[in-house]
Amino acid sequence: MTTRPALDELGLATGKKARLHRILHRHGLCNGTAIFLPYDQGLEHGPRDFFANPAASDPKYVISLALEGGFNGIAIQIGLAEKFYWDFAGEVPLVLKLNGKTDIPAIDPLSPVNATVRDAVRLGADAVGYTLYVGSPAQEHDFRQYLAIRDEARELGMPLIVWSYPRGPAVDAKGGKDSFYAVDYAARTASELGADVVKVNFPHPEKQDGVPAPYQGKFSSQQAIEAVVRSANRTLLLVSGGERAGDAAMLEKARQSMEAGATGLIFGRNVWQRDHDESLRFVGQLRDILAKYPS
Amino acid sequence: MTTRPALDELGLATGKKARLHRILHRHGLCNGTAIFLPYDQGLEHGPRDFFANPAASDPKYVISLALEGGFNGIAIQIGLAEKFYWDFAGEVPLVLKLNGKTDIPAIDPLSPVNATVRDAVRLGADAVGYTLYVGSPAQEHDFRQYLAIRDEARELGMPLIVWSYPRGPAVDAKGGKDSFYAVDYAARTASELGADVVKVNFPHPEKQDGVPAPYQGKFSSQQAIEAVVRSANRTLLLVSGGERAGDAAMLEKARQSMEAGATGLIFGRNVWQRDHDESLRFVGQLRDILAKYPS
Amino acid sequence: MTTRPALDELGLATGKKARLHRILHRHGLCNGTAIFLPYDQGLEHGPRDFFANPAASDPKYVISLALEGGFNGIAIQIGLAEKFYWDFAGEVPLVLKLNGKTDIPAIDPLSPVNATVRDAVRLGADAVGYTLYVGSPAQEHDFRQYLAIRDEARELGMPLIVWSYPRGPAVDAKGGKDSFYAVDYAARTASELGADVVKVNFPHPEKQDGVPAPYQGKFSSQQAIEAVVRSANRTLLLVSGGERAGDAAMLEKARQSMEAGATGLIFGRNVWQRDHDESLRFVGQLRDILAKYPS
Amino acid sequence: MTTRPALDELGLATGKKARLHRILHRHGLCNGTAIFLPYDQGLEHGPRDFFANPAASDPKYVISLALEGGFNGIAIQIGLAEKFYWDFAGEVPLVLKLNGKTDIPAIDPLSPVNATVRDAVRLGADAVGYTLYVGSPAQEHDFRQYLAIRDEARELGMPLIVWSYPRGPAVDAKGGKDSFYAVDYAARTASELGADVVKVNFPHPEKQDGVPAPYQGKFSSQQAIEAVVRSANRTLLLVSGGERAGDAAMLEKARQSMEAGATGLIFGRNVWQRDHDESLRFVGQLRDILAKYPS
Amino acid sequence: MTTRPALDELGLATGKKARLHRILHRHGLCNGTAIFLPYDQGLEHGPRDFFANPAASDPKYVISLALEGGFNGIAIQIGLAEKFYWDFAGEVPLVLKLNGKTDIPAIDPLSPVNATVRDAVRLGADAVGYTLYVGSPAQEHDFRQYLAIRDEARELGMPLIVWSYPRGPAVDAKGGKDSFYAVDYAARTASELGADVVKVNFPHPEKQDGVPAPYQGKFSSQQAIEAVVRSANRTLLLVSGGERAGDAAMLEKARQSMEAGATGLIFGRNVWQRDHDESLRFVGQLRDILAKYPS
Repeated sequence: MTTRPALDELGLATGKKARLHRILHRHGLCNGTAIFLPYDQGLEHGPRDFFANPAASDPKYVISLALEGGFNGIAIQIGLAEKFYWDFAGEVPLVLKLNGKTDIPAIDPLSPVNATVRDAVRLGADAVGYTLYVGSPAQEHDFRQYLAIRDEARELGMPLIVWSYPRGPAVDAKGGKDSFYAVDYAARTASELGADVVKVNFPHPEKQDGVPAPYQGKFSSQQAIEAVVRSANRTLLLVSGGERAGDAAMLEKARQSMEAGATGLIFGRNVWQRDHDESLRFVGQLRDILAKYPS
Repeated sequence: MTTRPALDELGLATGKKARLHRILHRHGLCNGTAIFLPYDQGLEHGPRDFFANPAASDPKYVISLALEGGFNGIAIQIGLAEKFYWDFAGEVPLVLKLNGKTDIPAIDPLSPVNATVRDAVRLGADAVGYTLYVGSPAQEHDFRQYLAIRDEARELGMPLIVWSYPRGPAVDAKGGKDSFYAVDYAARTASELGADVVKVNFPHPEKQDGVPAPYQGKFSSQQAIEAVVRSANRTLLLVSGGERAGDAAMLEKARQSMEAGATGLIFGRNVWQRDHDESLRFVGQLRDILAKYPS
Repeated sequence: MTTRPALDELGLATGKKARLHRILHRHGLCNGTAIFLPYDQGLEHGPRDFFANPAASDPKYVISLALEGGFNGIAIQIGLAEKFYWDFAGEVPLVLKLNGKTDIPAIDPLSPVNATVRDAVRLGADAVGYTLYVGSPAQEHDFRQYLAIRDEARELGMPLIVWSYPRGPAVDAKGGKDSFYAVDYAARTASELGADVVKVNFPHPEKQDGVPAPYQGKFSSQQAIEAVVRSANRTLLLVSGGERAGDAAMLEKARQSMEAGATGLIFGRNVWQRDHDESLRFVGQLRDILAKYPS
Repeated sequence: MTTRPALDELGLATGKKARLHRILHRHGLCNGTAIFLPYDQGLEHGPRDFFANPAASDPKYVISLALEGGFNGIAIQIGLAEKFYWDFAGEVPLVLKLNGKTDIPAIDPLSPVNATVRDAVRLGADAVGYTLYVGSPAQEHDFRQYLAIRDEARELGMPLIVWSYPRGPAVDAKGGKDSFYAVDYAARTASELGADVVKVNFPHPEKQDGVPAPYQGKFSSQQAIEAVVRSANRTLLLVSGGERAGDAAMLEKARQSMEAGATGLIFGRNVWQRDHDESLRFVGQLRDILAKYPS
Repeated sequence: MTTRPALDELGLATGKKARLHRILHRHGLCNGTAIFLPYDQGLEHGPRDFFANPAASDPKYVISLALEGGFNGIAIQIGLAEKFYWDFAGEVPLVLKLNGKTDIPAIDPLSPVNATVRDAVRLGADAVGYTLYVGSPAQEHDFRQYLAIRDEARELGMPLIVWSYPRGPAVDAKGGKDSFYAVDYAARTASELGADVVKVNFPHPEKQDGVPAPYQGKFSSQQAIEAVVRSANRTLLLVSGGERAGDAAMLEKARQSMEAGATGLIFGRNVWQRDHDESLRFVGQLRDILAKYPS
């Protein structure tokens, strides 16, 4: 059992509800939970992320993995969607990532838009993704381009998943990007700005250097992720895997997140930076956790 | 086994393929066949169609029936979609019917557009429907409004199902609206004009008064429907139930259609003009037929 | 108590729900019922309608009457709204009638648009009105202009009230414009095409000349209006007063309508073609009926 | 009695008058005064503002509080409006806040737009809110985005409430953001730029370090707030509660403001950072004050 | 007699000529001269400018003064125009000031646009005003926004009055903002950029610190203002009163200006910072001067 809200309690318009229903109840475990496979690291970090498992350099391999692993969706950029999704169209939901950046220039964090919600509709996607850099000095620019996408997503009934990432020098000075404070603020910001789903990092309540006073108390991980889920309120919450880390720790984070009322997980490198069978074995462990939190 | 083409042999763009995949392989029998429930008769004929089974006057009852009966989609007008589909969003595919008319005025057959492909996208539909009156004196107007919809459907990756109906005085004078000649021509017209799926009546090769010479030979029903499927070529073909008729005859038509390579059936009044249990019993018989023609 | 659906069961988007809530629960009896004062007869029939009570020629008099009488809204054309509504802005809800016509030329029934939903928003209206002539040979043109208004109303969250009027030679030949058949079809057509509220005449089941077979049975007035309310399903139903008639008959029609699940009444000439005190006395009787059907 | 102008003396177009009439005369005390509940702090400050009363983290709780407390409106961002206002649509007026920011990055004060006046119309809002940072080095950018919103609000008849906040290093150097000088200038700026309503902090005439000479005289609080109301002229004035402070002081500010001709109050944290019953008790005291200033 | 050009010698398009004719020949002295009342100081300086005469804080008082004093126009910002001009519409010409700023932040001189020429047309204005800061480091931005307004004014036949003000550190270093050099350059710049009318300060030829060599000779005030008028060529010239100063000096400046071929005066604080009767007395003296320079 879970405390997370059902789809019909979220104030969703018809198209968004239809598409989220498909993702959450007709794919993966079909139990209202979700695990997504993000595969935009080729743009965000470059091919270096594929050196650990060269097979993962091939989009066809990774999308196949999403199918085999019973994922609820694959999140990719427009180029890969145009060239590779046809082969799998309708078999695994497509989350078209609408913005992205290289990590080469040292500039204010901002993820420029490179595709439209219309592109997503045209390709038969079931959701779009947008990276918002909460706390960036480029906030004004970020909010403006986000507004256009939120509005187009609304007009086309397309669920909007916000990668809500604390970033920038002020974030670094206030506990860093995965402090409880930063992650909590990021979840709430996505909700305030109208995300249907928000992707956050797992919060670290022990990172307290420079965080506002209310966050300087003693909080367990479980308490922190529960607060973050509450901050997201009617915005469904996904917990990100982030960089590859130890399996036991990852699984415990996943368990705590689901216990707190998260809707699911979005794990990329932790999955496809292993060899094929290892990937599926690890995904199986994640699915075992999700299976315990039907809605 | 069937002779009908697989989805990846139809020249479909990604979005259309994704949506048709969902309809054909993730709903109903999930075997590439389909049975649709059309429910636009409240507009086309008025409430008189519901006197046989007053419960069917309630759109919620009929959409529920589509769910219970394992249909691959429900075809309705914008008003019912706006007000009733939310309750079922994503549970059964929506085919938004984009045009329709009352049967009151005595004018040249033409079905005016009352909704857009954008409406369909916004509501999370998986296909749109358009009634084309093949043979109508209003053909020029019909083709023009069809063009706009075909184009918008293409831009948004939305499968276009054409209700291809022979109509008008010239059709009446050449064997009538369900002659082999008329149905065959209607199937080919839909294909020539870019339909992804075409809905036709079952052809009657024995209706030969006034039909062109090539159709005046002796054809079995099976030969006729096979020819019609060939005329549709890469446009998937659905056979319509039409007015309510004897069950045995209907089932035999369904069997012959599937044998000929049709993709499925679209049965409305034959289903919901019965009481609830009878409806499901009859649908069960139709599904037994479809189950024999996986792809 | 009543069988009519509550606002939150109608599949309404937020803005439409907010505006209908204001009309139904914050004006008039504030009990979910409504009585509207239509005042577009100056365009539809010309000033001749005001000869019975010359004071009613003055829009300020009639809008004041709506306030005094505790109406839930006043339905007027753009010209009167621009010049007279400021004086009463927000005190009584404005229903901006978007189309209308003179009754002078003998042409196919069609009510041309003369204002936009944006006009209605700009003037602070809480609903817009559109006259649809069900059965008119001009059906295609009517549906097309209706589509644009339905869509704009949706985009702006503005409730759409359809004056659903059977008209045209085919209607005349099939029982006339207020037969049970015609009114029933009109109610369903408005629902199929997405009206939020439909205004119909009270049905006359005894008018059976030329109506389809199902309507040739024996139906009481009460049965007929109940069927019409069902045909409108999630579209709220208002019963029109039409031409001025005997009070007892009008009140009985009103009672039957509310008993059947109608949301309310829309009475114009029956109200303002009397002198001031008589108008208020009659409205008081109508309000007594509405008071018995809270939701 | 009050000296503040009546709605029909403000030069308002019809739609703005209708909507302000609803807010001021059909909600709250219905006497021309208003008390608004602002709830955008989740974006402006992050969830830390909810630690004092965790229940207030839930938007549904806070909007319910607005209803229970008899507020004239709730001011929220687009995300919460989309997901939570439907439940209360029309029961309490919605003020859609069109811009907002996180307080994380250290940049020139500017509140980026994240929603449109059309969004507000669509959601059935009765007003929109815009934060203008008077004195910010980003003034040029601020004025430009404000212009677009003022213009769209005018076209759609939507009242525009300006959060007129002195900010920036020059403000800090001239008496600070709540000096009489700064607040007075902020009120006038909103009026010059066409706000219909302006929200200001209560002026502190004792803060005189660096303020222009005319403000270096001896002014009582009452004189200061009276001058500020005059500076706003035909722009209705709301006094902000700001950070939570002592009740007696808050109530005295409220009384002085109303005495000076303010239209009302906008109190957020002072209300919802208490537990439920305490919130209502405090609001009751504010309402007692407003009740003495009908118009 | 005057040397200034008549309206039909200025190369004006029809609409601009019609509106300038109204200003110059049907208001004020109706003799081709003009005296304007600028009232944008509430934005430019804040309410402190009204402390000298608190009545002047009320826009209604000041516009009434313009009527009583026989002014040819009142120059105000959009907010006051929207809320106060209706009361006087058509009685005194409106000059809608399209840009303006607060004087709080210490940034490069630039006056951001807050209204459009369309606003001016909509409100029945007879001219628009734009402040150009000649010499500002923000020149590029200033010219760009000026271009858009000049173009819109041309398309709509609206006379464009440029407040041509030398500003910025380079101006301060070269004789200051009212040196002959600076004022002369400002007049010519407005003419080069297409102003129909230019407002300048009275030139001070004795301010020579840092001015270019040609301006370091000995010039009388009269010579200087004559040169400035020549620099403006077919752009009509208005001389600004600036801060309040001694009456005799002001009147002499006015006389010299008119003698030089200026079209008129634009005096604000010198007028309304006095009490009512004093204002009118002073204006009477200015009108006596203008009366001597008919065209």
